[in-house]
Amino acid sequence: MATTNFGMVGLGRMGANIVRRLALHNITSAVYDVSPDAVKTLAAEGAIGATDMANLASQLSTPRTIWIMVPAAVTDSTIASLAEHLSPGDTVIDGGNSYYKNDLKNAEFLKAKGINFVDVGTSGGVYGLERGYSLMIGGDDAAVKSLDPIFKALCPGVESAERTPGRTGEPAQAEYGYLHCGPVGSGHFVKMIHNGIEYGMMAAFAEGLAIFEAADEMTPAYDLDIPAITEVWRRGSVVASWLLDLTAQALVESTELKEYSTEVSDSGEGRWTVQAAIEAGIPAHVLSASLYARFASRNNDEFANRVLSAMRFKFGGHNEKPQAK
Amino acid sequence: MATTNFGMVGLGRMGANIVRRLALHNITSAVYDVSPDAVKTLAAEGAIGATDMANLASQLSTPRTIWIMVPAAVTDSTIASLAEHLSPGDTVIDGGNSYYKNDLKNAEFLKAKGINFVDVGTSGGVYGLERGYSLMIGGDDAAVKSLDPIFKALCPGVESAERTPGRTGEPAQAEYGYLHCGPVGSGHFVKMIHNGIEYGMMAAFAEGLAIFEAADEMTPAYDLDIPAITEVWRRGSVVASWLLDLTAQALVESTELKEYSTEVSDSGEGRWTVQAAIEAGIPAHVLSASLYARFASRNNDEFANRVLSAMRFKFGGHNEKPQAK
Amino acid sequence: MATTNFGMVGLGRMGANIVRRLALHNITSAVYDVSPDAVKTLAAEGAIGATDMANLASQLSTPRTIWIMVPAAVTDSTIASLAEHLSPGDTVIDGGNSYYKNDLKNAEFLKAKGINFVDVGTSGGVYGLERGYSLMIGGDDAAVKSLDPIFKALCPGVESAERTPGRTGEPAQAEYGYLHCGPVGSGHFVKMIHNGIEYGMMAAFAEGLAIFEAADEMTPAYDLDIPAITEVWRRGSVVASWLLDLTAQALVESTELKEYSTEVSDSGEGRWTVQAAIEAGIPAHVLSASLYARFASRNNDEFANRVLSAMRFKFGGHNEKPQAK
Amino acid sequence: MATTNFGMVGLGRMGANIVRRLALHNITSAVYDVSPDAVKTLAAEGAIGATDMANLASQLSTPRTIWIMVPAAVTDSTIASLAEHLSPGDTVIDGGNSYYKNDLKNAEFLKAKGINFVDVGTSGGVYGLERGYSLMIGGDDAAVKSLDPIFKALCPGVESAERTPGRTGEPAQAEYGYLHCGPVGSGHFVKMIHNGIEYGMMAAFAEGLAIFEAADEMTPAYDLDIPAITEVWRRGSVVASWLLDLTAQALVESTELKEYSTEVSDSGEGRWTVQAAIEAGIPAHVLSASLYARFASRNNDEFANRVLSAMRFKFGGHNEKPQAK
Repeated sequence: MATTNFGMVGLGRMGANIVRRLALHNITSAVYDVSPDAVKTLAAEGAIGATDMANLASQLSTPRTIWIMVPAAVTDSTIASLAEHLSPGDTVIDGGNSYYKNDLKNAEFLKAKGINFVDVGTSGGVYGLERGYSLMIGGDDAAVKSLDPIFKALCPGVESAERTPGRTGEPAQAEYGYLHCGPVGSGHFVKMIHNGIEYGMMAAFAEGLAIFEAADEMTPAYDLDIPAITEVWRRGSVVASWLLDLTAQALVESTELKEYSTEVSDSGEGRWTVQAAIEAGIPAHVLSASLYARFASRNNDEFANRVLSAMRFKFGGHNEKPQAK
Repeated sequence: MATTNFGMVGLGRMGANIVRRLALHNITSAVYDVSPDAVKTLAAEGAIGATDMANLASQLSTPRTIWIMVPAAVTDSTIASLAEHLSPGDTVIDGGNSYYKNDLKNAEFLKAKGINFVDVGTSGGVYGLERGYSLMIGGDDAAVKSLDPIFKALCPGVESAERTPGRTGEPAQAEYGYLHCGPVGSGHFVKMIHNGIEYGMMAAFAEGLAIFEAADEMTPAYDLDIPAITEVWRRGSVVASWLLDLTAQALVESTELKEYSTEVSDSGEGRWTVQAAIEAGIPAHVLSASLYARFASRNNDEFANRVLSAMRFKFGGHNEKPQAK
Repeated sequence: MATTNFGMVGLGRMGANIVRRLALHNITSAVYDVSPDAVKTLAAEGAIGATDMANLASQLSTPRTIWIMVPAAVTDSTIASLAEHLSPGDTVIDGGNSYYKNDLKNAEFLKAKGINFVDVGTSGGVYGLERGYSLMIGGDDAAVKSLDPIFKALCPGVESAERTPGRTGEPAQAEYGYLHCGPVGSGHFVKMIHNGIEYGMMAAFAEGLAIFEAADEMTPAYDLDIPAITEVWRRGSVVASWLLDLTAQALVESTELKEYSTEVSDSGEGRWTVQAAIEAGIPAHVLSASLYARFASRNNDEFANRVLSAMRFKFGGHNEKPQAK
Repeated sequence: MATTNFGMVGLGRMGANIVRRLALHNITSAVYDVSPDAVKTLAAEGAIGATDMANLASQLSTPRTIWIMVPAAVTDSTIASLAEHLSPGDTVIDGGNSYYKNDLKNAEFLKAKGINFVDVGTSGGVYGLERGYSLMIGGDDAAVKSLDPIFKALCPGVESAERTPGRTGEPAQAEYGYLHCGPVGSGHFVKMIHNGIEYGMMAAFAEGLAIFEAADEMTPAYDLDIPAITEVWRRGSVVASWLLDLTAQALVESTELKEYSTEVSDSGEGRWTVQAAIEAGIPAHVLSASLYARFASRNNDEFANRVLSAMRFKFGGHNEKPQAK
């Protein structure tokens, strides 16, 4: 049986694919998940299955590296449980979407046990297995440096984009697609802002395309082919982007997007980004608006709207009825 | 039968109450509306009923003053029809919520016939009859000046508010509650911005109260008495305002505002205000956002939200389902 | 010498005027401030001066009530110092602009010593002495109830506004201008949102008036009398409000407001309001935008703007130079 | 001398490079500009120089195609002058950033003379010569179809991007990088919204990077390498985009972007996009906010800020002084 010092806790879409991408680069993982089926699946693909955290730790050579890829809500408890089975010199990676200020607590907790903590913001979604992951890393220099083979296996690699004009010589770390951003928490901080920007970009496209969708009732009226428009922008236009690629793809399959929900979730990063902007005193109109539009998509604006209708009724006698666009 | 040179075309809530307030100040109106019943009602209260515009004009002594209070959509055609029955020296007042740039066309059309045009932005809603109307007036000096008795009868009067510190001597026109703002269109321009500001103030209250409504699920949780909060702010607080008075009143009658619609209409002024801001190059984040929130209240954000869900599905495999707040 | 159980710590504009308003209602205060001059001034007006907190406590009969009115940054340390000199059954009021979540810590700290904690959000500014203060109160029922004479002396009183239609019988507490909002923290929570709404209302006026200021370069051009416009809106219009009264007053004294800064400060409440909105999942476009506009007023948008200029140069060869409006 | 039926009026950066890209595809242009030097430059590269519009028309075989690439302000007058020298069956292309509603007037004017009008929104900026242009085209079917060789020469071509999954068979027109969007005006309409989206995307990046720039004063403080962060996002992240590529490039050359202006221009499209959103009743928080941030960057928010400072002084006695972030 293969020996390895790398373990993965949490075998959801992201965790499982990270294990798979590492395997493609000849790095074997020992794996654990609360779902035995998830463990079985990965074991069938060549990973070393573990029955619990103790079992996971016992199957890893030291110093161990354990990547945790679990929902933010259980990150702290997972780290606490895991730490019981680790030894000084081991490293815990939190690769999930954790709040950066929380990283400091976990790092301190582990440090007291001689265990390193590294936070890794991981972008790439379901395409990461194939395209590689964009990795934003926080932690002490030595700990991060020792993980270089892991990060290099996961990242997209230099050749995945044309070189930026002005960059010369040996490619910098960032040009591989991973970056040691700074001390503990900085990886998640950078990932957080990344997602905030993502929200803003998504909202920009959504608003623009929505105007197209309404254009058949404007003056002059245009009956526009939105799938074709998103396709044409993919080549040579200023808005060319991966988000546009995905949008064009969704629209080929579903011209009117009818099967997609009008209620849009938001995750921690969008909210934390706005909080960070406020702490920094930086105007963040766009990032906030894109977050709020998601709140409103889930009808969280209902009471506010009733207040408006009540005011209108009181000062103007306006009886609110649904009206056309 | 009383003689008068003042006529009113359009006997909706606003037009009818203006006639009534003028009557309280011993100014008789001849009145016309497309609804004979509306004419009958006012005639029963002492106004001179007219069967059509020709009949209206024939019952007025010259120079005539005719106040038009009709929906924006029919203002131009009403003015065109009316003008056929008027004489040089007469004055047409457009008291409705017309677009100020349109006033210039109507003024030019009438000027060719020797007829004056005066635009009056009229604020006060259903309370105007009792409280008086805030009047924002545009037009030539002479024409506006000749209407002074009308405006003085309609306005709330000096005593309706405490005098602004720093103002001394004879009260200025504005202190009565009416103002000749400038040439043709300026009355509607000022009223337009007034309504834009109104949108922003309303939204500020609506957003804040909505946070209260959600506070029972926050940490710490507070089960707040929103009717009492709006009441307490009415005395001594910085947000004291007529809109707050009306909100407090609505909440006394309906603690949760359940009978008020979650779909909020918008009228021309809110939209024109944003367009004016853009023409002027003035940032208008708040005025725009309050307009857009109304658009979203009517679900005009649905396609945009589907676009967001489609992107999320494509990059993250997120299957959007309705989720809790 | 008069005896009293009421003390005030912090004799800035707000603290000093609260002492004065209480004196008008025959409630004597013992007073302390880090500035001996501030103490002297109040003592000359009839308050009991104290040389330090121990001295303050010693001059009060028990159970003591001590109102703290100090900058948020020193609230915790002031409470900690003060508590050393208090006895079980005493009550500490934090009347400053504290973060509501922080109230819970101070309340717990004092409770361990048998001391009550009451938080009071206080609105009214420099006019409070004369107009009375709008008081939003959080704390245990018994503690708050025992302070009723204090609150009744400070509040504006029932007669300071017309009664809200629909309210009948004995005036409710809120109609006096003070309100026990709920448990500890709720007073500051309600005051926080109050200030958030205030930001939004202020921004609505600021944006609208700025369009007026630019109107002389629009088409058609209007040279508007902004002082007169704000005055005319004070009577009968929908935007009538105390903020409008103050704006009209400022404009009488200074038509172009040239001596007022273009850099606008923000305090904790505006920021906390947005954070609360995010925690609650409530869209707060207007409240956020009004906060961000203040950030931008202080040029915190400079790096963002350089990023935009850099992009524009890169894709379009646009060399950014200052340009006219 | 080569004969051609293709002429270009306006030899700025865009016009000149279109001529050059056509030449690379063996399409010769006759060229005219108000600057004789601009004509000389292109003539030296192989184009047919013209001394005025009559001379331009006379050197073209019929039916002529003339592409106008001039500032929006002179488009109408250019078309009027040019039309005097054209014949029925000729086609005028407006490739500039014109307002789509204006296209209808020009199309009608030309139609009366038997001349076709085609509007082409052109994206690609200074990189278009090399990368090709994204072309959004409006006009009658026959007129647009006849220009296919021109558009095919200018567009980036199918191979310039990976094929969108789900698209099969013969590449659609949009996959080449040009699209006949609909009748007259639709090309400029689509380009307008494209630019609106571009504004939003740019602002999303600008806001996010500005938070990074301020992160060294937050808690915890991070001293981030913004050039490296933008570089790392280029590979595998969700925000990968051409705008990010350009930003990363600018930051390599200028880490702090100090030589770029803090004042950001805006052009017609951003403003028209917001107006279209309002006409359509579509919430456009992000697109509007990104426009307003540019207004504020040029200090168009000064009067609004003075209004805020005046209010704060009046209710709170706050004397505004510049304050730290």
